[in-house]
Amino acid sequence: MRNILLSLIVVGQALAQAPSHPLDGLTSAEYWTIYETLQKAGHATAETLFASVLLHAPLKSSVLSHKPGQTFTREADVVLLRGNQSYTAVVDIAAKKVSSFEELKGAQAPFVSSEVRGNGEAIKKDPRIVAALKKRGITDMRTVQCGAIPVAYQSVPEQATQRVGFGSCSLTNRTYHSWGRSIEGLTFQMDMVTKKIFKIEDTDVVPVPVADNNYEEIPETVRPHTTPIATAQPMGPAFTIDKGEIEWQNWRFRFRLDPRVGTVVNLVRFVDKGRPRSILYEGSVSELFVPYMDPSNGWNNRAFIDAGQFFSSIGHLKPLRSGVDCPASAAWFDGVTSTEDGAPKLSSNMACLFERNPEGPAWRHFEGGETYGRPTRQLVLRSAAVIGNYDYIMDWRFDPDGTIEVAVGATGVIETKSVAQKMAADHADHSMPETGQFVAENTVGINHDHFFSYRLDLDVDGPANSFMIHRMVPKRIDNDPMRKSIWVTQGAIAAREKDAILDIQLEKPSMWMFMNPAVKGPLNYNTAYEVMPGATAKSLMSPDDPTQKLGAFSEHQFWVTPYDTKQRYAAGTYPTSSTASDGLADWTKANRPIENTDIVGWYTLGFHHITRSEDWPVMPTMWHSFQIRPFHFFQSNPVLELPKSLAARP
Amino acid sequence: MRNILLSLIVVGQALAQAPSHPLDGLTSAEYWTIYETLQKAGHATAETLFASVLLHAPLKSSVLSHKPGQTFTREADVVLLRGNQSYTAVVDIAAKKVSSFEELKGAQAPFVSSEVRGNGEAIKKDPRIVAALKKRGITDMRTVQCGAIPVAYQSVPEQATQRVGFGSCSLTNRTYHSWGRSIEGLTFQMDMVTKKIFKIEDTDVVPVPVADNNYEEIPETVRPHTTPIATAQPMGPAFTIDKGEIEWQNWRFRFRLDPRVGTVVNLVRFVDKGRPRSILYEGSVSELFVPYMDPSNGWNNRAFIDAGQFFSSIGHLKPLRSGVDCPASAAWFDGVTSTEDGAPKLSSNMACLFERNPEGPAWRHFEGGETYGRPTRQLVLRSAAVIGNYDYIMDWRFDPDGTIEVAVGATGVIETKSVAQKMAADHADHSMPETGQFVAENTVGINHDHFFSYRLDLDVDGPANSFMIHRMVPKRIDNDPMRKSIWVTQGAIAAREKDAILDIQLEKPSMWMFMNPAVKGPLNYNTAYEVMPGATAKSLMSPDDPTQKLGAFSEHQFWVTPYDTKQRYAAGTYPTSSTASDGLADWTKANRPIENTDIVGWYTLGFHHITRSEDWPVMPTMWHSFQIRPFHFFQSNPVLELPKSLAARP
Repeated sequence: MRNILLSLIVVGQALAQAPSHPLDGLTSAEYWTIYETLQKAGHATAETLFASVLLHAPLKSSVLSHKPGQTFTREADVVLLRGNQSYTAVVDIAAKKVSSFEELKGAQAPFVSSEVRGNGEAIKKDPRIVAALKKRGITDMRTVQCGAIPVAYQSVPEQATQRVGFGSCSLTNRTYHSWGRSIEGLTFQMDMVTKKIFKIEDTDVVPVPVADNNYEEIPETVRPHTTPIATAQPMGPAFTIDKGEIEWQNWRFRFRLDPRVGTVVNLVRFVDKGRPRSILYEGSVSELFVPYMDPSNGWNNRAFIDAGQFFSSIGHLKPLRSGVDCPASAAWFDGVTSTEDGAPKLSSNMACLFERNPEGPAWRHFEGGETYGRPTRQLVLRSAAVIGNYDYIMDWRFDPDGTIEVAVGATGVIETKSVAQKMAADHADHSMPETGQFVAENTVGINHDHFFSYRLDLDVDGPANSFMIHRMVPKRIDNDPMRKSIWVTQGAIAAREKDAILDIQLEKPSMWMFMNPAVKGPLNYNTAYEVMPGATAKSLMSPDDPTQKLGAFSEHQFWVTPYDTKQRYAAGTYPTSSTASDGLADWTKANRPIENTDIVGWYTLGFHHITRSEDWPVMPTMWHSFQIRPFHFFQSNPVLELPKSLAARP
Repeated sequence: MRNILLSLIVVGQALAQAPSHPLDGLTSAEYWTIYETLQKAGHATAETLFASVLLHAPLKSSVLSHKPGQTFTREADVVLLRGNQSYTAVVDIAAKKVSSFEELKGAQAPFVSSEVRGNGEAIKKDPRIVAALKKRGITDMRTVQCGAIPVAYQSVPEQATQRVGFGSCSLTNRTYHSWGRSIEGLTFQMDMVTKKIFKIEDTDVVPVPVADNNYEEIPETVRPHTTPIATAQPMGPAFTIDKGEIEWQNWRFRFRLDPRVGTVVNLVRFVDKGRPRSILYEGSVSELFVPYMDPSNGWNNRAFIDAGQFFSSIGHLKPLRSGVDCPASAAWFDGVTSTEDGAPKLSSNMACLFERNPEGPAWRHFEGGETYGRPTRQLVLRSAAVIGNYDYIMDWRFDPDGTIEVAVGATGVIETKSVAQKMAADHADHSMPETGQFVAENTVGINHDHFFSYRLDLDVDGPANSFMIHRMVPKRIDNDPMRKSIWVTQGAIAAREKDAILDIQLEKPSMWMFMNPAVKGPLNYNTAYEVMPGATAKSLMSPDDPTQKLGAFSEHQFWVTPYDTKQRYAAGTYPTSSTASDGLADWTKANRPIENTDIVGWYTLGFHHITRSEDWPVMPTMWHSFQIRPFHFFQSNPVLELPKSLAARP
């Protein structure tokens, strides 16, 4: 019964006509209001496309003073596209008024669906393409797929005035999808408005591989001895959701599904001795940067700013599958986005929430012949970002001890290049070709990177925080036969942004903390939360590289900026065909003060990906994570008093 | 029924009088044979103590050629202690013969239980101790605990000829244990044989803190909404154990519980298209190094070589608690060690094996409006190493996709120093005191490190392997407006040991692989397994530091050595009061060839630990891990064909 009730609450919330909280996602009704308001104002003409409709981040002070039942301001940031011109508008939803409307100069709207998906037939009718395909023995155009997409950074002059798509084709005979079937050597650049190709490059003729890329229909083979396993919660899950407010153990938080960055968690608090204490005002992925490492034609510009370039046309979040991505007993959440016509689009199963049993102790100790301890459990809020070939499972995991674990599971299909060579040359060196690895016959998985910038607006016991770096520094000990060296901690508050641009170096370790200079715990330390990195990577590309300029956040593992509602996206608000004059690397040039003020942390989760045959035709999930954990925030271990059994109930 | 049957098999195996495989742990009967053989040979006189009795690693070639039912050689490595003299012996168990017996020169046996636990009363009767305690107002000796333990490295001249214990006392009024109750400023050095203190240092008088350190009796408080959660396996677990051979999905392996290093996994194979293929001949922790970072008296020598120094007196593995450390439905394993009298000692619940449901996909992909994927599960082999205050949960986790995840969960009680100051001084700098953090009133958790050396005898498709380092190297691209840089892979086979001493540097990333130069996969790559690091740390201490010399393995994240049965322990076989002339840093000076031969990898899993109030009085579990994963080992993704549901059964 409880499960059913929860589901109803969830569905009820997603379908609500009015939002219950200033940080809720835009509702269907609000999308319609935005549409009608822009139309009435004359901005949404028949030839105008809605490239982006997003909740305008409400003023933090008004959010923090909001009480349930009170009315609140709602605004939307809209990007419109008319021919080659992009426009930005802010719509006051309650007042049904366009607060601002202006042409977007020096940047462009993200590509819309009809641009990315709608130009295939036009491309295939271009006689030069027909001829190039014929040269390759391809005359049946039904199984040819062609398309064009933007590239990060303004790399050809036409991008300054036109919407330029960079295109290529694939052959999909005998396969459900085109991954692994690229027609190499043939690339083109086109004007996405006129649908005219203005440049074709036809270099090598490379046969299209026929390596098996079928993962959908692989027959199930149960391995020997396999028996059923399931997580049982006979009384239903241990969380409640009421008008978007999630309660689980001592945690309280909200979240919305943002069409651009996916899951945004908000107002994360922990009830400490009856008092809800602020930890994280807002947390989400801010941008993804996936550069490929092959300089050949068609690959040299393959470097994606996935969220900012593609959210509108391809979408960020994709549905989760019950029993695969999340347990069937999870709570499921719908998402609402807009189509390029401005109408709302409701999608099911865009996030799930469930408890999981990690089968281990919250703490334990063996002493005097006895082991004492308490088992733990975890609350997982999950969504999946799929931008083309890759699937990223995005988790926010809440631990009873006050830790938030943020994790990305990368799976999906790798990008491959068709090559004439069947397999690796006969030598022991695995690093040939130097730009990738054979993963199937005639199929090379190209080396690439994955970088995620997480925007973490930590508000530890309130918005005014300072960022402290604890450096561990070797210290020489003299005149002691037993010891010649130790390391000591040197804490320093970062006064300005440039003091807080951080790299992970094993020989110079440091600990990163957001602390409240006005609140002290019982031991006289200022209360704090630590951002504790996991395994990560930094970009190896040159800072003058056009694509790297846009993905410049990947040069460092952590950044801190003063809170600014306009600075939400690590590679800038409008990365499409941009000149990279926006984003973390740019903002921090101002070197603004960040002490005792509202500050935001930016963590780079990254990994280099050299592919392997095991990644083909679909890649086993590879997880990376980092933690946000209390540091002198609680008086003592906050899970001391957990029940001795997971069967406990109140 | 199945569960019960499994339990019977398990218990049956642990109690067996004869081992079924050359790599099985020593049985009770074998311990008795060793005892009797040494006694008959005149080596186990009444005053002789058994400091260490371990299975002598059998010849790899004979293990690999062993067939079930065949007889096999069994030998034991024994360390005996008589007064100040340590002796090593090898006992041929089948022949009941002492193969070798010699005095151990320039090194010492690990401390035995009676040394560590049996000297308290003698210490408390020393008039100087009595006086020093009286000076502190302590006259009731019942609640005073005193003891002495070895230190790593020969730091005082007396250690060359005597067994020297370094001692201190605690006060345990109103507490079950002495952690957090140190009597600071009073330390001594004693001869462990004569039980005489030969040096006392009495510096400061510091009151003993009374901060609450009770974690055992904390009343259970069920948090709101909590409902039961359990992992259900109505048909029992999906693994079988037959005479020590574990089968789970395509995995095959054995393990033994070694008194010194804990869980040793052996003969790990993956059945690939019906053919068991070798991956890991043997894997285990090899040593633990935990140095503290306070130069004051009594702390300057606090740097533990936990396995090598303490396994005999304190023991490495401690019992797991059902429902806390492992699910109640797990398979449980007994362990056998010897007492200092040479008799076997059987202990329950020293390891557990269970399946867990990570609630996520083995792989998934969204394409054409549909998500396809398969849920995964994991097999966990768990034990807990507890050496004094710290508890380390040690996991070997097997994934269906051929990945082994090795994880350490650190929990237990932190070591604290009693200080006169009540709490942190009133300033914002968290790094005061520079050597630790207040975790309770008058109680400072001292900064320290945890380093684990994992010995990984990978035998990929057979014993003769090469170690390949794939470096990712930036490469400049000229004359391309779209791209100025990429990174490429440069593979190099490490010819000698010094080529394979590796550090993790984010600006110079590399990938580490064990490959078989004689076996190629279908794409012409040599089959390989990668060791993929997780978040880790390197030692910041100076290489000339006495303790660092012994824990020198912590200076680098990876090492490779040629297989040598005598080289099993990263800090040497006899670290107690040693001169650090054994161990990884020493062996690799020879710079032996490691190409196309039987090689062993050594991974350093480490973390710096700055304590926080949340770590008191018992620390929430903090996990670190790394992975061993296939790289061009399988033809393609090995989990493509998993069932679509976790309810599947064959």
